[in-house]
Amino acid sequence: MSQEYEAHFDRLGQTARKAARRLARLGTAERDRALLTAAHLLDHRRATLQEENERDLVAATRKGLSEAMLDRLRLDETALAQMAADLREVAALPDPVGVVTRMWTRPNGMRVGRMRIPLGVIGIVYESRPNVTIDAAGLCIKAGNAVVLRGGSEAFYSNRALVALLREALLETDVPPDAVQLVDTTDREAVLAMLKLDRYIDVLIPRGGEELIRFVTEHARMPVIKHYQGVCHTYVDRDAEIDMAVRLTVNGKAQRPGVCNATETLLIHEDIAPAFVPVVGKALIDEDVELRVCERTARLLGDLPYRLASPEDYYAEFLAKILAVRVVDSYEEAVEHIEKFGSDHTETIVTDSYSTAQRFVRDVSSACVFVNASTRFSDGHQLGLGAEIGISTTKLHAYGPMGLEELTTQKFIVFGDGQCRS
Amino acid sequence: MSQEYEAHFDRLGQTARKAARRLARLGTAERDRALLTAAHLLDHRRATLQEENERDLVAATRKGLSEAMLDRLRLDETALAQMAADLREVAALPDPVGVVTRMWTRPNGMRVGRMRIPLGVIGIVYESRPNVTIDAAGLCIKAGNAVVLRGGSEAFYSNRALVALLREALLETDVPPDAVQLVDTTDREAVLAMLKLDRYIDVLIPRGGEELIRFVTEHARMPVIKHYQGVCHTYVDRDAEIDMAVRLTVNGKAQRPGVCNATETLLIHEDIAPAFVPVVGKALIDEDVELRVCERTARLLGDLPYRLASPEDYYAEFLAKILAVRVVDSYEEAVEHIEKFGSDHTETIVTDSYSTAQRFVRDVSSACVFVNASTRFSDGHQLGLGAEIGISTTKLHAYGPMGLEELTTQKFIVFGDGQCRS
Repeated sequence: MSQEYEAHFDRLGQTARKAARRLARLGTAERDRALLTAAHLLDHRRATLQEENERDLVAATRKGLSEAMLDRLRLDETALAQMAADLREVAALPDPVGVVTRMWTRPNGMRVGRMRIPLGVIGIVYESRPNVTIDAAGLCIKAGNAVVLRGGSEAFYSNRALVALLREALLETDVPPDAVQLVDTTDREAVLAMLKLDRYIDVLIPRGGEELIRFVTEHARMPVIKHYQGVCHTYVDRDAEIDMAVRLTVNGKAQRPGVCNATETLLIHEDIAPAFVPVVGKALIDEDVELRVCERTARLLGDLPYRLASPEDYYAEFLAKILAVRVVDSYEEAVEHIEKFGSDHTETIVTDSYSTAQRFVRDVSSACVFVNASTRFSDGHQLGLGAEIGISTTKLHAYGPMGLEELTTQKFIVFGDGQCRS
Repeated sequence: MSQEYEAHFDRLGQTARKAARRLARLGTAERDRALLTAAHLLDHRRATLQEENERDLVAATRKGLSEAMLDRLRLDETALAQMAADLREVAALPDPVGVVTRMWTRPNGMRVGRMRIPLGVIGIVYESRPNVTIDAAGLCIKAGNAVVLRGGSEAFYSNRALVALLREALLETDVPPDAVQLVDTTDREAVLAMLKLDRYIDVLIPRGGEELIRFVTEHARMPVIKHYQGVCHTYVDRDAEIDMAVRLTVNGKAQRPGVCNATETLLIHEDIAPAFVPVVGKALIDEDVELRVCERTARLLGDLPYRLASPEDYYAEFLAKILAVRVVDSYEEAVEHIEKFGSDHTETIVTDSYSTAQRFVRDVSSACVFVNASTRFSDGHQLGLGAEIGISTTKLHAYGPMGLEELTTQKFIVFGDGQCRS
């Protein structure tokens, strides 16, 4: 890596750090005004943004990207309106910064508390969707953090235009424009240079496919918050209500199969399997779901189509209308299966047994453990965090969907009146 | 690294992970009983422990270790009694595991909560004091975690005996003995092998000198919670009460100079300097503190002895009776000084101005920000956490003194009644 290149990134990191310090001292109103100003500009610069987006779309078409990919890339009127609405929604959320989460008094009279403060500078490395540029920057600023963004090369012109717009909006407010910076070269070396800025970037959040996340994890010198996979389980217990179990299974698998909180494996208690398997099998086939099943399930499916599952199927994140199915001997075997094959993301039990429900909530250590609810609710918005910057399946700092709070840390504050230690 | 060696560590990691899973499902009483049983054994095995400790002491004397180092290493009756008392104290603390910190209801009727769960397997790499073996293992078990310990070579026999005792105690309880494991070779390669076990060890906590911490940070593949230095500041504001400021300065510097929360730099507002400097100067000299001062301070010290400070003195963690002193033009300059020279550990302001106190608490982003209290209170016990596993000056996961809560994470739990996502 050339010295010039390193110097460029060092400057970028330094200015981000400096902006973060100023930003951390601003009040809620000043940070919210920055988001609202950006939303306003988004509404009034659609033509310019779409021109730049068009350059990305032309290049992507030339490269032969799929229609699905082009869709994700496209900044049409709806997408732009949604981005502005998202910023306004984040501005309206309660401010986590400065909240004193607890305060207690020591025997010597000192009052000790913990106060939420911003993390500092957050790095985001992401793939094609340009809306992440606005969403991530909005959440970071709301929580008092500066952000360094590195988007995918397919969205190069779109991201550059969106960041220019954000910085223009910040100029009209007290938030320093350097609170939002874009790494605007498309080579992989630029990502590597960014991942070395541990002096300036407090945490790195990669968003994208598994390859990207592995690359970032391997090379980042700062902490990385990430999740690789969502191999989510729906476990239908002996005491499940069959109708509910069918609805939750179909919703978990088929409502949107391409996302990380979709159910990938259905586990069924052997006592309920004879009554449940034929019904859920039919419901899933009606939704065009391919079934990859154990031999006990197969015997219960009758004439319904299926393939026998290989062990790999139980490890798989299909992200498609494919479901692995297994009948288990017991509650314990279900929990063991989840431990062995799962990815610590989201598991749900369907049961009307109070004691089994309580046990499941205690026994399963995944980031999201549900009772009688679809795995598809594993999402910051759906769980009531108001927004989501990402999801973590590593336990340090954050575990599960991350909202504004997870973009802060807590310092200790003490109000004394001259206490000395003896 | 030989394959055999790697296989050995892989087994160690696997058994730790397995023990952690069992441990996580035990109740409070079962974990507490393990600690109390270990305390009981500590009381009844003093002779054996002291024999093993003697082997370390003989080797250390032969190597010419200082009397201070020998003292830290020695397991005399007081030290052993203290270790047993510490275990009983930890057993008596409230259990963080299973606590639902918040619970709310979504518009669709789902009840969403966050529940504290153990982190899993915690690695501790530490230097000579063998009491860390008992303290760290006790805290990890209390919070439902398995622990892999790697102590310093000077305490090899002591640590081996203490871990054997802990495992013997666990055998009498429901906590699996493999919840406490010792890396019992003294070569550096063993540390390296341990630092590669990111599949099994969730977090690494190094405790010791800066060199050890840098080594661990550089080579660990799992997250590391650490602090390098404590360059703590006492800032005497314009509106300070002089008597209190003198007491807090002397306590911060001289009460125990060799620890990370001792004050290393004294900042003084120029308006109060003429009245304060001569008084605090005399009080510090009376305590044998060496002063390294700016020119303005020098002019106010009169006949008292001092050296002029170099810029390095403001970056220094002296860990000795040496204090850097600087007169600043303003509150703002004090905060800038702390930002530039500080280590994000602990800073205190002495002031009777309500508004300046509130500003300081907001503006300074160090892990501990105090008003009118000695920096020496920056400690888990002193702040009321009940215990301390370490201190973090990195913001992710934990910031400042870490107690039992910081050895846990939070999962989301949902109680639904059939909710599907639309």
